[in-house]
Parts: sequence; structure tokens; C-alpha cells
Amino acid sequence: MTMHGSRLGIPVVWHEDCLRHQPGGEVWLGVREDGTEVPERARVILAALTAAGAPVVPPRPHDPAALLAVHDPALVGHLATVWADWEAGGYPADYGRDRVVPYVFPTAAMLASLPLRTPAAIHGRVGMFCYDTMTLVGPGSWEAIRAAADCARTAAELVASGQPAAYALCRPPGHHAGRSGYGGSCYLNNAAIAAQALRAAGIDRVAVLDIDAHHGNGTQSIFYGRPDVFYGSVHVDPGAGWFPHYLGFAGERGDGQGLGANQNIPLAPGSGDERWLDAVGQLCAQVRTAGADAVVLSLGVDAAAADPESPLEVTADGYRAAGALIGELGPVAVIQEGGYDLTSLGDYVAAALFGLQAGQAAAAAG
Amino acid sequence: MTMHGSRLGIPVVWHEDCLRHQPGGEVWLGVREDGTEVPERARVILAALTAAGAPVVPPRPHDPAALLAVHDPALVGHLATVWADWEAGGYPADYGRDRVVPYVFPTAAMLASLPLRTPAAIHGRVGMFCYDTMTLVGPGSWEAIRAAADCARTAAELVASGQPAAYALCRPPGHHAGRSGYGGSCYLNNAAIAAQALRAAGIDRVAVLDIDAHHGNGTQSIFYGRPDVFYGSVHVDPGAGWFPHYLGFAGERGDGQGLGANQNIPLAPGSGDERWLDAVGQLCAQVRTAGADAVVLSLGVDAAAADPESPLEVTADGYRAAGALIGELGPVAVIQEGGYDLTSLGDYVAAALFGLQAGQAAAAAG
Repeated sequence: MTMHGSRLGIPVVWHEDCLRHQPGGEVWLGVREDGTEVPERARVILAALTAAGAPVVPPRPHDPAALLAVHDPALVGHLATVWADWEAGGYPADYGRDRVVPYVFPTAAMLASLPLRTPAAIHGRVGMFCYDTMTLVGPGSWEAIRAAADCARTAAELVASGQPAAYALCRPPGHHAGRSGYGGSCYLNNAAIAAQALRAAGIDRVAVLDIDAHHGNGTQSIFYGRPDVFYGSVHVDPGAGWFPHYLGFAGERGDGQGLGANQNIPLAPGSGDERWLDAVGQLCAQVRTAGADAVVLSLGVDAAAADPESPLEVTADGYRAAGALIGELGPVAVIQEGGYDLTSLGDYVAAALFGLQAGQAAAAAG
Repeated sequence: MTMHGSRLGIPVVWHEDCLRHQPGGEVWLGVREDGTEVPERARVILAALTAAGAPVVPPRPHDPAALLAVHDPALVGHLATVWADWEAGGYPADYGRDRVVPYVFPTAAMLASLPLRTPAAIHGRVGMFCYDTMTLVGPGSWEAIRAAADCARTAAELVASGQPAAYALCRPPGHHAGRSGYGGSCYLNNAAIAAQALRAAGIDRVAVLDIDAHHGNGTQSIFYGRPDVFYGSVHVDPGAGWFPHYLGFAGERGDGQGLGANQNIPLAPGSGDERWLDAVGQLCAQVRTAGADAVVLSLGVDAAAADPESPLEVTADGYRAAGALIGELGPVAVIQEGGYDLTSLGDYVAAALFGLQAGQAAAAAG
């Protein structure tokens, strides 16, 4: 990676259990596709970062309390047991039901004025937690979900203990998972777990910056009413027909004590580097104004030009420049989110981290 | 049909457009199946009823106001245009997307505290209205949905104008459709449209009795806060793992002014005639206590022993006896709901209507 002119010093927090989640595809508009959130993503990123010289460190083991600080115990319990329940339910795998997929969803259109109650059967219950048909669960999913959360928490703790930056190679990703529900190929919210870990370590003001190509509706919803964690996101406009469709609009500014601590910048498809970096710059300016003692960066690289899941057309140089802008803000715990083009994924992540390293060095040099 | 010892005099309201809805299957737990809510159902029932001597009458044409009395205009608008929107969206039919199937659903787990807003793209928007993956829309669906609603309304108007009983051969069925949403193979709520038509014709107190094997969550939700329309249902216990999973429990008794005007009797799988008829009798007793000037009967015959969609094991004689009990209550507009065993479906519907006719005759005699 001589193109970056230096060695990547940011530690990579990684556990092989993150490979154990094999969603086996996703169901989009009633049809099962191969899907793009595959274990190979993590392998490609790990190869690029180790080739760049980054040290790899293991996560600290699982602490349930760290999950429960941002997630409903019912969601965590569901994710821990849903595969076993599915197997016990006897849904015939030979008819394609080899993964957990919901079919009925307790929306307001269904429930009307009645309260939500938990269904007895897992095939009815799963739609209470999982809000789409894209986010399948299989035999090794829970182990990977837990390992990804551990990686996120460990990266945050490294930063809290003085490391300027640490990167969690989380898979599955997390930013679409809310306090009580999962979707968008996300199960537990790794970025929220990291932000909460920073708060728990005594850091007063945390900013989550989300540069994944999609809005991080889960992270937004978890911190929507809180003034201590700012959430800012640049993403493809859900109003242009993109996931998560229902959320991610500019008018969503937070609620109650959190009013003003949420900022979305939706971009038109095809925006490219200039408009994207302008938005990243606006978010950084807001973080400076709001004040943040540490940053969590939700690093999805699916804004990449070659990515099959978004139309934002951002280059690797764009990600490097974004990393530099964010690195100037202070200490950063980086959480891997999306990014699905296996040929360019590793280079994009490396570019963002090299940019971050350079931005932090420049800021330190004053 | 000499086994019934008489000719069926109840008029059958029927329109051929009800055959135009060809859902093309249903997606259950991520896999598309052939489905059981097929046009042949209506043909089989029509053949049995005409063989029994019943007169067939056409529905009065569409009156949008009649739909809007029980449904949100946004739902009606969605159903009227969703297929055209889908076609315009260019979802490739050659990959199996020949029908409208949602993939993301704005549940509380997704939205958290944020308000529901209508997505721009139809593939995101459909999950706001359709709460499951079982209820597909295709080219002729709207014409059938509208025709079924017309049949229901016409049957109610026949009853309001003095006919002791009228039967609407509705397809698709309706009792899972709520004010703002659809699911469970139902789109508009034919029974609710009939009940509202009775009210609009000046009938003060209406009772909807629902003997479909599944809970009519849509009808319940539409009238949940109203004292003028009683809703009573016997169905397989959703707590035993049956659709609609989230609703249909005994504790749901209505709300506000409607408190006490809702009664669910969930039954265990395998209950059979005796327990089922006991529940029907309890519902009839409640209707007598509450007082009703006319009854809407949601006649699903999927409690049939041979039905593939429920485990209640009720015989045709059971349905005849239920019809007799309900016929004794007064004038009845009968709305076809479920029933999926094509070999016995016609006989079951005929048995229920002969029972109803006999019950009304007995009550008139004395």
C-alpha cells in the first residue's frame, strides 16, 4: 500500500466469529436473492488492512450489560435464541426455509389502536423484531452478531483509554438496528454500542458520524432523545426511493432534550465526491459547534462508485478526504458498516483509515 | 341438494370481476407458494349455491363513499393504483416479481418514536399498507376487490330493504383488512362495508358474527371503539401459533364507547363441532343481550375438517347448526370470507345457508 506513503497504525479489532454469520441471501420483493452481505467482505477488508501494516487485536469478550445499555433485553434475547426456536419449529429447510424470514409485521396498519403483544409462535413473533425480509438469521448468526458487538465495544475502549483511533471490523453491520428491532442486514447496533461504551468510560459528549451510503435509522432512533450523543449522517435520499424509505430526512432533528443533536443530509443519486464531501464537511462543522470529546465513525463504504447497493458514486480519494476531515475532530472509534463491492472494498476502507490517520496527525501537528 | 330437503331461497350477490384477482400465490417465511385463495373457490361456491336453487343477483355498482366510511382514503387509493405503480416501477417479472410483495415494514421496532411518513417509492411504500407477505396484488386485483365490496354492500342493502337474508359471494375475502391496512389475503373489509351500509340504511344496532377459522382482526379494529356495531368471533387461538398472531385474544373487549362490544372466543386446534358450536351459541347469546337489529355473518368455512388452513375440525353439519343459531337472531347479511378445500367448500357454504334459512323460518314460525 505504498500509494498511501505510510504504514497504517490504527489497530484493527477483529474476531473470526464474524465470519460465522452466513445469511444465505435476502428476500427482496418476495424473491430470495444471493445477497451482498457475505463473509468474504470481512476477509477482503482484513487482507487490505493487514497489507497496509495495521496491527490486529482481539476483542474483549462479551459483556451483556454493554448490549443492554442501547438495546431492549427482548431484542437481545430474541437474537440469541431465534435460530434454536426456528429449528425447533420444524420449518422445512428442503422448501427453502433454511433461514429465519418473517412474514407478518405488527405495523400500525395492522394493530390500529391495540397494544403490541408478543406472539407465541416464532414464525409470527419474528416480525415484531425484524422489520424487513432482507435480514435473515441462520446457524452461526448470533455468534457473529455478538462478536461484532464485542469488536465495536473494544474499539471504543481503546479510544477511551487514549488510543487516537481504533477500527472495529464488524460483521454483520449495525446502523439499521434500533433499540428493539433489526433490519437492513443489521442485528445489533455496533456504532451505538461503541458510543455508549465511550459514554460509560466517562467521555461526556460523543458524536456519531455515519458516512455509509444509507441512513443509519437505528443509530438515529437510539439517540434521538439524547443530548449527549450527536448523530449526523450523509446518505442517499430515502425520498428518491432508497432504504430505509421511512427515515433519514433532513427534518429529523432529534426530540426533547436531544432536539438539535440529530442531522441528516440526504443526497441525490449520482452526487459524487464534491457534494458528498461538502456534506461530510457540514457534519464535521456541526460536531465542532456541538462539541464532542470523541467520535464514532460509522464507516460504510457503499457510497463507492462500483458498489451494487447505492448510487452515490464516491471515489476512494473521496473516502480518504472524508477520513482526513473526521480525523481532525479528535479521537475516533471506527465501526465497519456496509460496502459490498468485493473488488474495491478493501481499498476504500484502507483509504478512509489512512485519511483519518493523516487528519489526526495534521491536527496534532497543529 | 335434496339432502337439505328444500330449495335455497337466499339471494346470492355475485359479480364475475371477483374472478379477476389472481394473487399468483403467497410468500410464507420467505418462500413463494401456490397459495389457496384462488378464483376456483368462487366458482365452486357459485356452483353449489345455484345447484341448491339460490337466485343470483348482480351487485349495485361501485360507490366510493361506501368504502371510505370504513377505510382510510389512502388505503383505497393505494389499492386502486398499486398495480399500475408496480408496473411503472419496472420490477422485473422475469425474476418472479410479477406481483406486488412488500419487503420493509414500518413497525414500532423500526420507527421508534418517529412519525410514520409515506415513502416515495412504491416498493418501500407498500409495507405501510400491507402488513404481511401473503397478500399479493396483480393485474386484476383491484377490479375484484371493488366487486367484492360492491357485493357486500348490495347484500346489506337487500337486508336493509326487508330481505331476511342475502349472501355476498365476496372474493377476495375481507375480514383481515383494517381501516388503513391489508393482509391475510384480504384487501378491503367486505363485512365492515356491509355493517356500515346497514347503519347507513338506518339500522341502529348491528352485530358482526365472524365464524371464519381465523380471527377477523380487521373488522375488530374498525369497530373497536364503537358501541353501535358489536363484533364477535370464534376462531383458532392465535396463542397456539395461528394467524393473525398479534390479535384475537379473549381480553380484547373494545375500547372507549365500544367497550364490551367486542368478544373473541379463541379455540384450541382440534376443537370440533361441540366446542365450536358452544362458542357460536355464546356469541349469539351476547348478541341477544347487546341487542341487534341486523346481523352481518362473516362466513368463512375454513374451520372445515378438510381445510388446509386451519385445524378446527368442524363438519358441514356443524356449519348448518351454526347457521340455524344465527338465523334465529334476525335479518342476516352473509359475507363470504375464507374456506380453501375446493372439494368440500361448496357444500359447507350451502349447509350454513340452509341452516340460516331454517333458523329464520323457525324463528318466524315461532
